[in-house]
Amino acid sequence: MKIRLILPLLLLSIPFAALCQEKPSGKSKDHLSAVAEKALIKVSIMYPYEEGKTFDMEYYQAKHMPMVAEFLGSNLVKYTIEKGLGSGIPNQPLPYMAIGTFYVKSLEEYQAAIGPKRDAIRADFANYTRIAPVILISEIIR
Amino acid sequence: MKIRLILPLLLLSIPFAALCQEKPSGKSKDHLSAVAEKALIKVSIMYPYEEGKTFDMEYYQAKHMPMVAEFLGSNLVKYTIEKGLGSGIPNQPLPYMAIGTFYVKSLEEYQAAIGPKRDAIRADFANYTRIAPVILISEIIR
Repeated sequence: MKIRLILPLLLLSIPFAALCQEKPSGKSKDHLSAVAEKALIKVSIMYPYEEGKTFDMEYYQAKHMPMVAEFLGSNLVKYTIEKGLGSGIPNQPLPYMAIGTFYVKSLEEYQAAIGPKRDAIRADFANYTRIAPVILISEIIR
Repeated sequence: MKIRLILPLLLLSIPFAALCQEKPSGKSKDHLSAVAEKALIKVSIMYPYEEGKTFDMEYYQAKHMPMVAEFLGSNLVKYTIEKGLGSGIPNQPLPYMAIGTFYVKSLEEYQAAIGPKRDAIRADFANYTRIAPVILISEIIR
């Protein structure tokens, strides 16, 4: 009788245990991605505000950034686009109209992928702005 | 005998079911935070590279940023710290030595929280650098 009681208990616990196992593994994946982001390299393409110059955000978002993202392949973790709103200081001009940022695992791989495509990327600039960007390569500390 | 078998089965399933419930709720929270990040406001405090000037990253990370983060309360979603590595263009100087970024839900709340603390924040600058920062307020588009 004892065996007849213990066996179903064991059988029942297996599917629950299997389901539950996904949770800690999901958690550790989140943890890994947080750790990974910390060590990532950011390549920020920053477009300074210049009076009278325009920036076509729609084209940038729909065409330019996806094109460059494709060149980067699996080295690219994510990319972001932001629109400048202000300088945070009254009467101080907006520093940047727009910033596009690529989060990559390896700077060497980024440079190897972009090198041969540089002319295509630069040729596309005229489709959305005449502002020359400032580029910053940085390391995520936190 | 049947009841004696079913009852332990039910009792056993309760803690497993409770544990497992956390999983989908965790997932939907991740989804929400991804959606929310898109509409967030970024306040970037950018320290331009200046020859001969230093930046104490250790102090900035251990003292300054946590102090400001505390002033922001629940309006702050996250903050990041990055260290400038290069300009991405040969022979072009590094644009920024360091950038601290606050991701907040409301710009108005950020300004209301920082306003009365501005002197304390500025007084702490001298503890890690003599570089005057450039501030950019931007909106996350993607």
